[in-house]
Amino acid sequence: MTNVIAEISVSLDGFVAGPNATLENPLGEGGELLHEWVVPTKTFQEMHGGEGGLTNSDDELFAASVRRQGAVVMGRRMFSGGEGPWDQDPNPSGWWGDEPPFHASVFVLTHHARDPLVLGETTFNFVTDGIESAIEQARAAAGDGDVAIGGGAAAIQQAITAGLLEELRLHVVPVLLGGGVRLFENVGRPELERTQLADSPSGVTHLTFRVTR
Amino acid sequence: MTNVIAEISVSLDGFVAGPNATLENPLGEGGELLHEWVVPTKTFQEMHGGEGGLTNSDDELFAASVRRQGAVVMGRRMFSGGEGPWDQDPNPSGWWGDEPPFHASVFVLTHHARDPLVLGETTFNFVTDGIESAIEQARAAAGDGDVAIGGGAAAIQQAITAGLLEELRLHVVPVLLGGGVRLFENVGRPELERTQLADSPSGVTHLTFRVTR
Repeated sequence: MTNVIAEISVSLDGFVAGPNATLENPLGEGGELLHEWVVPTKTFQEMHGGEGGLTNSDDELFAASVRRQGAVVMGRRMFSGGEGPWDQDPNPSGWWGDEPPFHASVFVLTHHARDPLVLGETTFNFVTDGIESAIEQARAAAGDGDVAIGGGAAAIQQAITAGLLEELRLHVVPVLLGGGVRLFENVGRPELERTQLADSPSGVTHLTFRVTR
Repeated sequence: MTNVIAEISVSLDGFVAGPNATLENPLGEGGELLHEWVVPTKTFQEMHGGEGGLTNSDDELFAASVRRQGAVVMGRRMFSGGEGPWDQDPNPSGWWGDEPPFHASVFVLTHHARDPLVLGETTFNFVTDGIESAIEQARAAAGDGDVAIGGGAAAIQQAITAGLLEELRLHVVPVLLGGGVRLFENVGRPELERTQLADSPSGVTHLTFRVTR
């Protein structure tokens, strides 16, 4: 059964990217600390063309999410960092290289129409009519898998506000970034039920919430 | 051994009180939701003159903290809600009634000097020379017990900024308040190590951090 989920690493003070993000450093100052739990895992390394990697409980948890992933929705900045028309985007093929790690259909929220872009086993589709449409198209592409709202924060916020997010998985990292991009902003007051809790060898706390309303 | 600790309930979006707090409703809109896990416990009920109450794992965890508590530091608003000179405070004896739940020495941060106030087994001392002094006096009063920075957020932030907070215990409640008083603001970037993690029958996540720098 398809669930519409969002999974993201967040600092203890609620940021998903640090201050002063740039095209060169899209995670902002200190933002890389949010991903130190996942980068060394075997699953992450395999997805990004690496070898080896840890096979700990963080890896199992991350692998289970990846296995369930049928299609992905992401914001324009998570795709390329750009904002304007595509012919002026400094990074029109995106951050993700020739063999992006998604191996699935990805739906990119943008104000600027564009034909699909196929890179390796990933097809990036560009959606100009909003989050509802992107999620609907991703559902159709996901088969029995989940639709993952990959980020950034704005895409997740839009999915919450539209009442379409069903599950939120947070990886709470014990760092304070002191500024940057907040996960929870302008999302109203959806009701949440905490359904899972998992510890981590890295000191991260993995929390799963069902969005009930 | 005395530890300087702070223990506080916080919403998933990082607030320790909801929006629009007033003297009548000091927790702000929705703020009471932050305490629904603890109010029904046997330990809380006993502290506040009630009877009965739950003896679940939340109660055990809360009771363990209370047992370790040797002295308390709190902000003026947590004492009375007032701000100015004491003879103009609308609530000069504080929120806590004739038999406050602390049964210990409490050190209230204020800009306005005042003689100690004894209510039941609790003595409120009024400290005008800042958080370092308040913590030092509380240490002297705490014996082998812990010094608990009871709140509000500003008192905890001052203790962190002064480099005096040793342990932070958060009860992360699965609600979004959407506004109010943030726990983490203007605290710089202390380093934290997550040392404990406990589930709760109420869906709250209990997290303990050691402040290492």
